[in-house]
Amino acid sequence: MAVYTDVNENELAAFLSDYNIGSLTSYKGIAEGVENTNYMLHTTKGLFILTLYEKRVNVDELPYFLELKRHLAMKGLLCPQPVAQKNGDMIGELAGRPAAIVTFLEGMWIRSPDVSHCEELGTAMAKMHLASVDFPMSRANDLSVQSWRPLWNLSKDRADNFSAGLVDEVEGDLALFEANWPTDLPRGVIHADLFPDNVFFLNNKLSGFIDFYFACNDILAYDIAICLNAWCFEKDGLFNMTKGAALLRGYEKIRPLSAAEREALPILAHGAAMRFMLTRLYDWLTVPDGSFVMKKDPTEYIRKMRFQRTIISPSEYGLDLAGL
Amino acid sequence: MAVYTDVNENELAAFLSDYNIGSLTSYKGIAEGVENTNYMLHTTKGLFILTLYEKRVNVDELPYFLELKRHLAMKGLLCPQPVAQKNGDMIGELAGRPAAIVTFLEGMWIRSPDVSHCEELGTAMAKMHLASVDFPMSRANDLSVQSWRPLWNLSKDRADNFSAGLVDEVEGDLALFEANWPTDLPRGVIHADLFPDNVFFLNNKLSGFIDFYFACNDILAYDIAICLNAWCFEKDGLFNMTKGAALLRGYEKIRPLSAAEREALPILAHGAAMRFMLTRLYDWLTVPDGSFVMKKDPTEYIRKMRFQRTIISPSEYGLDLAGL
Repeated sequence: MAVYTDVNENELAAFLSDYNIGSLTSYKGIAEGVENTNYMLHTTKGLFILTLYEKRVNVDELPYFLELKRHLAMKGLLCPQPVAQKNGDMIGELAGRPAAIVTFLEGMWIRSPDVSHCEELGTAMAKMHLASVDFPMSRANDLSVQSWRPLWNLSKDRADNFSAGLVDEVEGDLALFEANWPTDLPRGVIHADLFPDNVFFLNNKLSGFIDFYFACNDILAYDIAICLNAWCFEKDGLFNMTKGAALLRGYEKIRPLSAAEREALPILAHGAAMRFMLTRLYDWLTVPDGSFVMKKDPTEYIRKMRFQRTIISPSEYGLDLAGL
Repeated sequence: MAVYTDVNENELAAFLSDYNIGSLTSYKGIAEGVENTNYMLHTTKGLFILTLYEKRVNVDELPYFLELKRHLAMKGLLCPQPVAQKNGDMIGELAGRPAAIVTFLEGMWIRSPDVSHCEELGTAMAKMHLASVDFPMSRANDLSVQSWRPLWNLSKDRADNFSAGLVDEVEGDLALFEANWPTDLPRGVIHADLFPDNVFFLNNKLSGFIDFYFACNDILAYDIAICLNAWCFEKDGLFNMTKGAALLRGYEKIRPLSAAEREALPILAHGAAMRFMLTRLYDWLTVPDGSFVMKKDPTEYIRKMRFQRTIISPSEYGLDLAGL
């Protein structure tokens, strides 16, 4: 649930006077989203989304996220577009927080994606990877392999109580990642959080991506690895190879993977499971129950991490190796 | 925060196929509201609100609320309008819950109402009271004086721990209400929950009321009494007589109060403070912290109850008694 900051009508009116988006007729807090406060604005010019950036977001990084959305849209990719103030700024201040307005992206996120959704996701992700090749800004992934051990150390003491044996498992995995994490794969801008709730569809066609606040420069295939975990497991915890195959097929229609990228998929997917397990475990053990942060049970990603640890060949994701 | 029930795109599409409201382009959970789950729907025909009625709502009472909104709108009062299904029904089922769609009411609720807002509120409330004189349905107020003692008994054991002396106070007040609650004042349909977040304004004009799910047949002046508590206290806890005067003046422009109604205002406002104190206290002491129900600290209404207990004359609310 994501209204951490209430905005009153007077401060909102003052804020909107810096924009050319018509006159406000209503605004409502949106329940979705876990990091920031989002309002849907209805004005005489249409619908917009207002985001107030809460304390987990580093203000200095906002230009990267907003310029990236603008860059992608100029290349024809669908995502919310930052709306500039009359003076050209894309970031203002509202209720003591950095705030920005973006255009409203039509579409809905799919609660139970099917095979065709996975294929479309792969295609759109590959287009995004290609479209951002010439994006001039850069941002390190602060949730990649180098951050996992410090994050883990904050949960480690309580981890075996949460899930028996977890400490030995994670220690083993971290040593593996630190020794073997790929360093020479193609890099570029990745979304890094393409969970189903950040991908909109309209009439069963992908209508765009939202929520670029984890976007960064990293290994392109790591974005695929995150999606294999987020889109291709069934509710019973089993990996659906048909969905994995569709995701990879959709991706390779636009950007075929190199042999090195294919071979790296198992370790990347294993690491991606670790990354989401670690942030969820930390929140679960650390964030007080009374807080508004939506905590997700880390168990799902402990299971995915265990699954990924067993994978030897990318063909186990459904990747067609026939052409190699 | 009010998304108790997530709705997936397939069940929503099936539900909407029973309506003539165009084709869905997006839906988002709304954070406001404490009793039910609300989604904002955007379709090719505009904006709508979808409500899923959660377990606190009695399904048998839904026709009263929905028909009342239809009745008021026919009389020219602004409120969300129920949208009927193709077969004429106003209530369907979605995600295992009764569900209804209403038109989208433009406007915003005022976080810090000023004197002019209070006057407009009074006027609109009086119009609503007159417009519902010929509303044919009836619903008892299940949160009126007869329900307060049973509700109190569920919290009484823990009440002194919450606020020292509360048990003696409430027992005294309940005896007072049970002996003296007015029985011969004009009755009709009241909203019974006209807090600022249920009253929308657009360009500083009242644009309508929402959330009729406490509406019932009761003493008309009790609706005023609820608003004296909800609109006319400042954040420091002091009653603002200028706001009280404006509310009553606005009301009497449309529907002048009888001498008996005026004299009853102190006991009605005292009782109204009791009613909201009791539900908040019950939720505070009883609803588990982990639940999604938004609990409100009862302290604010304990203070209002104490204030109202001291009131002898309606002139203390700012009521102009010169004409009497």
